[in-house]
Amino acid sequence: MAKEPKKLDELFHDTLKDIYYAEKKILSALPKMAKAAQSGDLAAAFEKHHGETEEQVSRLEQVFELIDAKPQGKKCAAIEGIIEEGQEIIKEYKGSPALDAGLLAAAQAVEHYEISRYGTLRTWAEELGLDDAVKLLQETLDEEEATDEALTELAEQVVNQEAQAEAA
Amino acid sequence: MAKEPKKLDELFHDTLKDIYYAEKKILSALPKMAKAAQSGDLAAAFEKHHGETEEQVSRLEQVFELIDAKPQGKKCAAIEGIIEEGQEIIKEYKGSPALDAGLLAAAQAVEHYEISRYGTLRTWAEELGLDDAVKLLQETLDEEEATDEALTELAEQVVNQEAQAEAA
Repeated sequence: MAKEPKKLDELFHDTLKDIYYAEKKILSALPKMAKAAQSGDLAAAFEKHHGETEEQVSRLEQVFELIDAKPQGKKCAAIEGIIEEGQEIIKEYKGSPALDAGLLAAAQAVEHYEISRYGTLRTWAEELGLDDAVKLLQETLDEEEATDEALTELAEQVVNQEAQAEAA
Repeated sequence: MAKEPKKLDELFHDTLKDIYYAEKKILSALPKMAKAAQSGDLAAAFEKHHGETEEQVSRLEQVFELIDAKPQGKKCAAIEGIIEEGQEIIKEYKGSPALDAGLLAAAQAVEHYEISRYGTLRTWAEELGLDDAVKLLQETLDEEEATDEALTELAEQVVNQEAQAEAA
């Protein structure tokens, strides 16, 4: 008998595992980014987002429960690559006035990956009639979008301060 | 003599190489995604974006010129990971009614990576006083955001059609 092709509910489950893995990776990367940050504001932003990420992991666990699945990660090559680039920035720009600008860029790449994943999962959850999952996913999506906006504002400040320091 | 730490102009140049590499990877991935797509609308969207990506590569070459640098790519682990996930979708969901939904999710992850990179580069170009580069980067950023919105609309349609096909 031929194997039944995978359907939307399986794609939803696979993608849930992907973002669950990604969130766990992000949880372990954020303290390193906070430690590397030169600006106190940036370190505080990373620490705040670490707390939010813990909540987001817990919301994902609730979504797994809603589809009667065990919370489980699946290696996500995208987040590995994105985080690897952030680690390169920390290494290459250590001691540079541009380090914080680079860290912010790395963090925004992470945020945008999450925004795309949560947007996709929310659309699929609607289609699958998983109303409680829609709410949980939307809550995280809103949080990620707010974080991205806060990082954009911080990026403008940090880059300005750096330019002033260089000019001094 | 100690090496001078890298500054914002070098971070701008490094990140320009990163997105230049990414755009070239995207150029070669899009025809494969168009070929794999089941929906004619989705294939057409990928083909249209292929044309736009060619323009975006040419704009990046103009930005390299504005900073007196040779257009050159630098291996970007993030885009490699994101595209690898798209290729896994093509393999794992071949023949499945959920294939197009998966392709759309992969394409939106690509778009969001680009949105974060172009947003960052545009902010840095402003700070570096590269007014002509700001215009070119903003033009591409607007295009990527429009593409992401078009893909979101298409995702809702595609997922609806799939659900109807499964119910039939």
